[in-house]
Amino acid sequence: MRVFVLLFVLLIPGANAFQYSELAQYVESQKERYVESLREWVAIESDSSNVLKRPLLHHMMEVVAEKLRLMRGNVEMVDIGEQELPDGQTIALPKVVTAQFGNDSNKHTVCVYGHVDVQPAKLEDGWLTDPYNLTEINGSLYGRGASDNKAPVLAWIHAVEAYQKLNMDLPVNVKFVIEGMEETGSNGLDAMIFAQRDTFFSDVDYIIISDCGWLSRRPALTYGTRGNCYFFAEVEGPKQDLHSGVYGGTVIEPMTDVIGILDTLISPAGKILIPGIREAVAPLSDEEWKMYQDIEFDMENYKNKIGVSQLMYSNKVDLLAHRWRYPTVSIHGIEGAFSDPGTKTVIPAKVTAKFSIRQVPNMDPAQVKKQVTDYLHSVFAKRKSPNKLKVTMVIGAKPWLAETNHPLYEAGKAAVKRVFNLDPDFIREGGTIPIARTFQDVTGKSIIMLPIGGFDDGLHSQNEKMNRYNYIEGTKLFVAYLNEVAQIRESTV
Amino acid sequence: MRVFVLLFVLLIPGANAFQYSELAQYVESQKERYVESLREWVAIESDSSNVLKRPLLHHMMEVVAEKLRLMRGNVEMVDIGEQELPDGQTIALPKVVTAQFGNDSNKHTVCVYGHVDVQPAKLEDGWLTDPYNLTEINGSLYGRGASDNKAPVLAWIHAVEAYQKLNMDLPVNVKFVIEGMEETGSNGLDAMIFAQRDTFFSDVDYIIISDCGWLSRRPALTYGTRGNCYFFAEVEGPKQDLHSGVYGGTVIEPMTDVIGILDTLISPAGKILIPGIREAVAPLSDEEWKMYQDIEFDMENYKNKIGVSQLMYSNKVDLLAHRWRYPTVSIHGIEGAFSDPGTKTVIPAKVTAKFSIRQVPNMDPAQVKKQVTDYLHSVFAKRKSPNKLKVTMVIGAKPWLAETNHPLYEAGKAAVKRVFNLDPDFIREGGTIPIARTFQDVTGKSIIMLPIGGFDDGLHSQNEKMNRYNYIEGTKLFVAYLNEVAQIRESTV
Repeated sequence: MRVFVLLFVLLIPGANAFQYSELAQYVESQKERYVESLREWVAIESDSSNVLKRPLLHHMMEVVAEKLRLMRGNVEMVDIGEQELPDGQTIALPKVVTAQFGNDSNKHTVCVYGHVDVQPAKLEDGWLTDPYNLTEINGSLYGRGASDNKAPVLAWIHAVEAYQKLNMDLPVNVKFVIEGMEETGSNGLDAMIFAQRDTFFSDVDYIIISDCGWLSRRPALTYGTRGNCYFFAEVEGPKQDLHSGVYGGTVIEPMTDVIGILDTLISPAGKILIPGIREAVAPLSDEEWKMYQDIEFDMENYKNKIGVSQLMYSNKVDLLAHRWRYPTVSIHGIEGAFSDPGTKTVIPAKVTAKFSIRQVPNMDPAQVKKQVTDYLHSVFAKRKSPNKLKVTMVIGAKPWLAETNHPLYEAGKAAVKRVFNLDPDFIREGGTIPIARTFQDVTGKSIIMLPIGGFDDGLHSQNEKMNRYNYIEGTKLFVAYLNEVAQIRESTV
Repeated sequence: MRVFVLLFVLLIPGANAFQYSELAQYVESQKERYVESLREWVAIESDSSNVLKRPLLHHMMEVVAEKLRLMRGNVEMVDIGEQELPDGQTIALPKVVTAQFGNDSNKHTVCVYGHVDVQPAKLEDGWLTDPYNLTEINGSLYGRGASDNKAPVLAWIHAVEAYQKLNMDLPVNVKFVIEGMEETGSNGLDAMIFAQRDTFFSDVDYIIISDCGWLSRRPALTYGTRGNCYFFAEVEGPKQDLHSGVYGGTVIEPMTDVIGILDTLISPAGKILIPGIREAVAPLSDEEWKMYQDIEFDMENYKNKIGVSQLMYSNKVDLLAHRWRYPTVSIHGIEGAFSDPGTKTVIPAKVTAKFSIRQVPNMDPAQVKKQVTDYLHSVFAKRKSPNKLKVTMVIGAKPWLAETNHPLYEAGKAAVKRVFNLDPDFIREGGTIPIARTFQDVTGKSIIMLPIGGFDDGLHSQNEKMNRYNYIEGTKLFVAYLNEVAQIRESTV
């Protein structure tokens, strides 16, 4: 069921009661303590993709809950059940932490969503510092999860705390939903949101997500994200690894097969070869083209930051469009083959290729799953290999898109103006925040993405960092944003 | 320079002085001590391919030397210099242990070659037991390096020791050359053999290598091995790993490139596609065809052991020929990509594919290096990728072939007959023992490969093992073989 709402918006400029400078000053005075909190959180290896780290992830959720409890929030740890592993075993999912600050029915209620799980990281991957020991170099705080998403979650908590410490009323009621499975597809969260749609979420007016970054040094508001379908293609041959000297030439090797099918996914220039994928993509409108054309984006800077001699597209609109609103295939790696330094003369017996396809309007993960599975099986059948292929889609997250003229975004513009004295960029995100789409579909609430991460934070890669500047000014932005949201006046006609 | 030697052979049957049963009985009585020695050696993780394990490898060489010193051998630890790592750093190579027992110029002198380094192994790879804790299950001794090549080296040492303990004269002088870099191409050993050609090796008559296995339950003598050229194909793109959501669609990914070039090495049916490789192979002679046809080899058993539903060739001659005397390409894995369990949405910045090509007469590694490098660069150039490709050949080992009617092999037949009351199979080895070729080329001495490993020992794969039966009966075989070699009479005309 869809409810049509007509919005009437009135922004009351510079509400007198709001003492921004006092709050900003308080935030300034607490900088070192904020960094210390981040250090404590980064030290917990809350890697949700590695089940061996699950106890640390459970611990991480406890630490979040305890911090919110100490602030006298109404905190709950919601059991969201179990996760089934590929081998059929089950393992407990990390609990979702919910919290509520303020319960004034005359105020708007915002719900801040964040996550405290992280991507895998090992020093050997090429980190210059221990990824779980927050290290400050030239104003950047290096550590896995620093920007994605621990510092933004802490900044939101500290924004609420600032009002408390100064004995100021919160301008809006603030709820939190903090999860621990975002990096692997927010397993269990959809069901939890659905289950609490008419309880926890019933009085929520707006949902705020700060799980992304700016496009340049200019603050930005994000109005769209790509989804992601993550696939495992497992090829199984001999019952165990074989010596390539002793057995090479007598068996069809699973690695040959897996390389062969992976090579049919994309052309050398990056064109997706799976039938049906490109056909589903919404065409680029003239308005979009114009909007991209107007965005402040330095191609040369982007190229240098990545460190490549040539990008996939040489003009700004094509590049931004392929980053934000076209699908792409990335091959992440192969599990089960020899991946260590040195030489090993092995024929791996079972190898699992991992690749993902970013989703954009109007692609449908269920459809993509079928397209990819059918295609790979047909390609594999042509090889006439005696080995066995199994294709699984382990993540299927939809894209999300918002209206840029929504009052939430007007409030964002005002808050950015107050803190940075700048107009924000309106941008999309190539990455996936799957839960945005679920919030939209299940609760029907409006959503804003309000990033504070830097454009070069290295999410998911080595040497992830959060700038001290972004962390502290970002906390001020959240402080100011809560006040701006309080000014929104909507009437339902 | 080539010296032509005419051989005149006389085998003195059943030399009276040889008390085989007494020696065999002694070996029987020492079984548990032999297993204990193997346990101690397996416990040392002497992985030569992982430079981080180098201290353990040095320790392994010390342990070998000490064992030989306790037997009053004339032991030396030969410094063979340093190894250059891909990043330009250098690291000390493990010393080569040489030893001499007996110095009677009226006797033949044999030189036993072996190695005590091992392939990598981790419990997580799918081992049922700790690979460095020798574990006996149903008469099999499981552990990395148990069969390749620690037990055979120990069996040779124990064979010499048996003569000593019973106060019997060694029928021949016995020298040992034990190295620690075999699994990565015997780095440094060639130069050492060359340097000692006119000293240590000058009085050596025959070289014995026991670094391989039988073809079935029937003991075997090995008269040929394949060589191996091991390649790294590194594709480098961005300066660090990237988030596939944030950057996917804007860069040509190194993984796409590496998959693309790997896919051009072999056809789905296993045909090598690199120009020039197949053309260099010596044609299969009618004699060879007949010999393969006569070998006792159970295809069904082989298929079941490997655990595949179909082999690459369905008849015995084709299968054995492609195992022993045709080249093959194996893709071992990719370093630098995501290879752990779970999901990671990463664009790996630099990936290194590892593959190797088994070498047979009349291929030449130097030629193969050029063929592969040229081919991959031409394939890569067609992709018009902005990424950088670097192809390196890190191992280049030649194949080896002996005459099956040489007196060394007649002696082998006699020893097998005495211990097992069977005729041995004459077989080749698909794997590589690069040093065989060097011994032949540099010293001009005759070589025999005298295996004691089982046909299903799982060399280089998970759950490597040495049968207790093969280990103990193998020790007896070596005891008997020393006596048979003493009977060889050669005259140079």
